[in-house]
Amino acid sequence: MTNKFVWTKKDLLGLEYLTAEELSHILETAEGFKEVSTRDIKKVPALRGKTAANLFYEPSTRTRVSFEIAEKRLSCDVVNMDMKASSVLKGETLADTGRNLEALKIDIFVIRHHMAGAPNVLSQFVNASVVNAGDGKHEHPTQALLDIYTLKEKFGSLKGLNVSIIGDISHSRVARSNIWGLTKLGANVTLCAPEIILPHDFKQFGVKITSDLDEALKDAHAINVLRMQFERDNAAAFPSPSQYYKQYGITKDRLKKHKKDIIVMHPGPINRGIEISSDVADGPNSVILDQVTNGIAVRMAVLYLVSTAKRG
Amino acid sequence: MTNKFVWTKKDLLGLEYLTAEELSHILETAEGFKEVSTRDIKKVPALRGKTAANLFYEPSTRTRVSFEIAEKRLSCDVVNMDMKASSVLKGETLADTGRNLEALKIDIFVIRHHMAGAPNVLSQFVNASVVNAGDGKHEHPTQALLDIYTLKEKFGSLKGLNVSIIGDISHSRVARSNIWGLTKLGANVTLCAPEIILPHDFKQFGVKITSDLDEALKDAHAINVLRMQFERDNAAAFPSPSQYYKQYGITKDRLKKHKKDIIVMHPGPINRGIEISSDVADGPNSVILDQVTNGIAVRMAVLYLVSTAKRG
Amino acid sequence: MTNKFVWTKKDLLGLEYLTAEELSHILETAEGFKEVSTRDIKKVPALRGKTAANLFYEPSTRTRVSFEIAEKRLSCDVVNMDMKASSVLKGETLADTGRNLEALKIDIFVIRHHMAGAPNVLSQFVNASVVNAGDGKHEHPTQALLDIYTLKEKFGSLKGLNVSIIGDISHSRVARSNIWGLTKLGANVTLCAPEIILPHDFKQFGVKITSDLDEALKDAHAINVLRMQFERDNAAAFPSPSQYYKQYGITKDRLKKHKKDIIVMHPGPINRGIEISSDVADGPNSVILDQVTNGIAVRMAVLYLVSTAKRG
Repeated sequence: MTNKFVWTKKDLLGLEYLTAEELSHILETAEGFKEVSTRDIKKVPALRGKTAANLFYEPSTRTRVSFEIAEKRLSCDVVNMDMKASSVLKGETLADTGRNLEALKIDIFVIRHHMAGAPNVLSQFVNASVVNAGDGKHEHPTQALLDIYTLKEKFGSLKGLNVSIIGDISHSRVARSNIWGLTKLGANVTLCAPEIILPHDFKQFGVKITSDLDEALKDAHAINVLRMQFERDNAAAFPSPSQYYKQYGITKDRLKKHKKDIIVMHPGPINRGIEISSDVADGPNSVILDQVTNGIAVRMAVLYLVSTAKRG
Repeated sequence: MTNKFVWTKKDLLGLEYLTAEELSHILETAEGFKEVSTRDIKKVPALRGKTAANLFYEPSTRTRVSFEIAEKRLSCDVVNMDMKASSVLKGETLADTGRNLEALKIDIFVIRHHMAGAPNVLSQFVNASVVNAGDGKHEHPTQALLDIYTLKEKFGSLKGLNVSIIGDISHSRVARSNIWGLTKLGANVTLCAPEIILPHDFKQFGVKITSDLDEALKDAHAINVLRMQFERDNAAAFPSPSQYYKQYGITKDRLKKHKKDIIVMHPGPINRGIEISSDVADGPNSVILDQVTNGIAVRMAVLYLVSTAKRG
Repeated sequence: MTNKFVWTKKDLLGLEYLTAEELSHILETAEGFKEVSTRDIKKVPALRGKTAANLFYEPSTRTRVSFEIAEKRLSCDVVNMDMKASSVLKGETLADTGRNLEALKIDIFVIRHHMAGAPNVLSQFVNASVVNAGDGKHEHPTQALLDIYTLKEKFGSLKGLNVSIIGDISHSRVARSNIWGLTKLGANVTLCAPEIILPHDFKQFGVKITSDLDEALKDAHAINVLRMQFERDNAAAFPSPSQYYKQYGITKDRLKKHKKDIIVMHPGPINRGIEISSDVADGPNSVILDQVTNGIAVRMAVLYLVSTAKRG
């Protein structure tokens, strides 16, 4: 595929809108960038002369820094815009903000927004590329791509792979993007959460759903453990974080009963002793820090592809 | 003029302090930079090795980003300093802040300050160049320069051009800088605002003053519509924003009676449905986004000229 | 020494952990970088392709900007992280933050933290270099290095030099780092503060301690005047800032009785009329702005040495 494939999409709004072939092309492009970085040639001139604007309507040091590093390694100029702190731009419509920034000849917008669909709206008003860095409970495509990249690195292929996503799925844009990406590439996805927050309607996506953690772990080649945010929506659902840990926490003991070489992922930041134990997070099955590293190569690939897309 | 003209001013503090020849030289230099940028050579090495510090005592994402992009396109290193958030520097005098930053070998200061005259004070304490990015109700010279650049682009010359500035003039540094720049270059300026906030004392600047919007629109080749900030000073002056819109809002219907090809400018961000209607802001007479684009070339020209000035 | 000396430390955590030889090597390396900068070659490619992250858990525009400029002059890519504003990373352990950033292939961490020892903790969890930019009341090694560099520039050598540190010593990480650095290089250090806040236990460091300002000034070749922060801890200790100024303020009259060419340093920002008078701060004995300038060369040297250290 690789050489003959021509990338045509100017935006990355979500994995729902991509074909399996497009997903594979991003992953293969990322491999090229990862190779470069491991040979200690950290910068490539691929996007020299282009400017990326990181528009963050929600604070996110972690994702912003990962994108910023990816942009700089492509020799792209970077402008950071903390839209939460920007009083003037807050009163402006997203369309006006986009059109104004486009008039400044921004080439790539990376946008994090609390409202689902904001990147899609922005992309309708600008010719520049738009990359979704997380929008409401909708999608977080580059996070899912780096999860999938990490799985492909370990297993060679996603085909037939059993992947279980465990935790607060219904509030998670990471889960949604993972479901789209994994199923398109042939993986079998199981979702696992306490019954009271189990998203039964996700069955439409062609995934298995269970509230039994051991059921979710049984045949899993890999699990993706989501951060439980008790401060937010789940206060009523559970008596306490320690209760959750007891029933759904991923611990060494819990994993012992299942595949010895099960791969453990987490999008970070981890809550030690809530959804995962330290001995698992820091143990031999964990690829959590590989995920972080792979995020650079995956984001470089996405930024490169969308901004050099052959447009229709 | 161009080739023989030698730029000698190390600062851009306001258009009041410039001659017509200097204004023209900035505009011509900006043309050169705009040509470069449209030929997809976005970066020039003109200020490589120099460092610009953007000192913002008032938040301004829009102006800060425009300057930052201009600096980076000149290959200048950029340091952003949010002086509102800086607890230590707040207690320091502007002179001490300036001297300290100069000791760090900063070459160019871009300063936005809530107090009129702050850039003038700073310039007395540093050998580095100082560019005023808006000071109190005093001046916003680069905004006026980009307005004037946009007019010159459309009309070829400012000589004899009728330009009306409409709205909250008395609080506007944009209006003041435009008045200086436009009149020096031979344009006829009319100011229009509701009687209760009409700045009669501006007559000393050689401009026409009226509270009759149709009078201001009658012979105008171009209008510059200012943002009305009801949250601030005008609460008492008017019953409501909708009342203002009815009497002074620039709408398609309102313009119909006057020159068909009147040019509509706005320094942004626009209040749709308050001082301007969407069909005008987004319509064929609007050059609002051209202004934004021209801001880069104009700021590149200013940064380049002041930092390479032949000093006396 | 210079050519044969091999730098082996990956971190700069404090001057307490350095030998006299290592201190001298930093100072000599800084001389090289200062020479470059004065010949108007402001950028060197020494760290091209490397990435520095400035992690500031405490706000500090002044120190952050100095490090940022030093990094950019070494052609290093820079990522600024305001950890005070970062909600997600605040809940994370320093170890997890460090490991995550290291997974992003950060080469150098510059860390400012309110807790003493935080840089030491971070350095245990990352292979990347860690530079302490001030931690609690522990150390501020690059500040002391630039103070010492400035003294060496004036006097040629530190050996036998009498240096008095005056003011709020017990709360000062600057004082502690200066004491380590100065005594190791053979200077004689005197600490002077009002009796009520005089840190008698500092005698263990081999320094002289007095509450008599004239005693501290008598044989001093140089003094380092510390900022008095009345808003914080000393409210009870003194009736008023003016009372402090009268007794301990460094004024022209006060200095007149002592060495004519005494060198006056201050880490900044200065409180004019509290710990120092304007005629001294801006007078011929002051090297306050030289200190700021030297900070760039010293920080370039430190960043360069730790990130190219020959590790054991």
